[in-house]
Amino acid sequence: MNKAILIGNLGKDIEVRYTTEDLAITNLDLATTEKIKDNSQTEWHRIIAFGKLAEICGSLLKKGGLVYVEGKTRKRTWEQDGASRHSTEIIAYRVVALGSGANLGVNRAIYIGRLGIDPEIRYTKDGLAVANFSLATNERKGDGFETQWHRIVALGKLAESCQRYLEKGRQICIEGRFQTRSWKKDGITRYTTEVIASHMEMLDSKKADAGALENHMIPNASMETGSMGDTPF
Amino acid sequence: MNKAILIGNLGKDIEVRYTTEDLAITNLDLATTEKIKDNSQTEWHRIIAFGKLAEICGSLLKKGGLVYVEGKTRKRTWEQDGASRHSTEIIAYRVVALGSGANLGVNRAIYIGRLGIDPEIRYTKDGLAVANFSLATNERKGDGFETQWHRIVALGKLAESCQRYLEKGRQICIEGRFQTRSWKKDGITRYTTEVIASHMEMLDSKKADAGALENHMIPNASMETGSMGDTPF
Repeated sequence: MNKAILIGNLGKDIEVRYTTEDLAITNLDLATTEKIKDNSQTEWHRIIAFGKLAEICGSLLKKGGLVYVEGKTRKRTWEQDGASRHSTEIIAYRVVALGSGANLGVNRAIYIGRLGIDPEIRYTKDGLAVANFSLATNERKGDGFETQWHRIVALGKLAESCQRYLEKGRQICIEGRFQTRSWKKDGITRYTTEVIASHMEMLDSKKADAGALENHMIPNASMETGSMGDTPF
Repeated sequence: MNKAILIGNLGKDIEVRYTTEDLAITNLDLATTEKIKDNSQTEWHRIIAFGKLAEICGSLLKKGGLVYVEGKTRKRTWEQDGASRHSTEIIAYRVVALGSGANLGVNRAIYIGRLGIDPEIRYTKDGLAVANFSLATNERKGDGFETQWHRIVALGKLAESCQRYLEKGRQICIEGRFQTRSWKKDGITRYTTEVIASHMEMLDSKKADAGALENHMIPNASMETGSMGDTPF
């Protein structure tokens, strides 16, 4: 994973240019400001957007505007006066205009953890694959650890990859968005919060040494729709 | 916000050095790999850790190891042979060793949205401030928008800042971790997923133009513990 997340103000208006292949390109100069005690410290970031995203930036963004940018960092190397020079840029894949009057936002979850069960796959009437599994994340808390369980949903091709490659105990990184849905049981409306995965990365080819850390764990609470699986650590 | 999130492999062993003020410093050279069709593309990142984090890196990390790094980017400028040179580094504030046998993970939420209610503050018996509010995030879906509601909890000083500065309709960025807790109502165990905020940034000093986009919204479902507030867009 190689991800940059920035919220800052644009240093200049956006100019969109086109390559000979008619691909739109634009640069964003973004200033992020951080308060350290009574001082504020500004960092400038050079961002590049391509294609449709570049055109949307050109039509929506203005100098001074508050902007959210998500992208990946890329190092460029070139020769100048016989010396090799480097510059780091951010290739944007998501840009959101923020500030007054702006109503679009960001809803992002990033987890690194281990699967509590093998993924379960089913198909909707329209033939869309839906995979469900639970993921346990484990973080330090005081002198011990704290385990949290998360419900993950993957759709389509990602669902099929999850079923094919993942199993209980596997360590993965999941990126996605939160979604709360309601359902009825015994006439009572219940709510479940899930993460709809947009990206999955396998981190560890081996299953965890079962039980090795089990006694450091807070017991696994079984949740609304049944058990999330045994603690996979 | 100026955030870099990387998962990659270390290019060399870690050496910890000390400044004359006895501050520990270490550098991590991290390679992130991305698959683009059948090719894989590697980016190298230069990471710096200070103090206790540097010492932990020195004792736990090894060349080749899989590592999660969260930090902020910083541009350094220096003179060499009469020319000005630049380099971009990442100042790490969180490092987690991943891979086989590793049981620590990551549990991270990032939201940009608007408050559905004014924050409500209360104090525990121990005098800890606890602020609760709902946050609506709005994202494009097809030709329309989709609103999701999130429960946010802030503790201590952050809770007091939220009560002091935030109000319904305000646009903010929240970073935190997910937590699911159980509670009883009418003898039935219910579960609530909340985000425990670690960081809050105010983005917009003005409230949204109420109702301007209301008819693009999916109706606000009232959730387990009552209404989250009116849609603040």
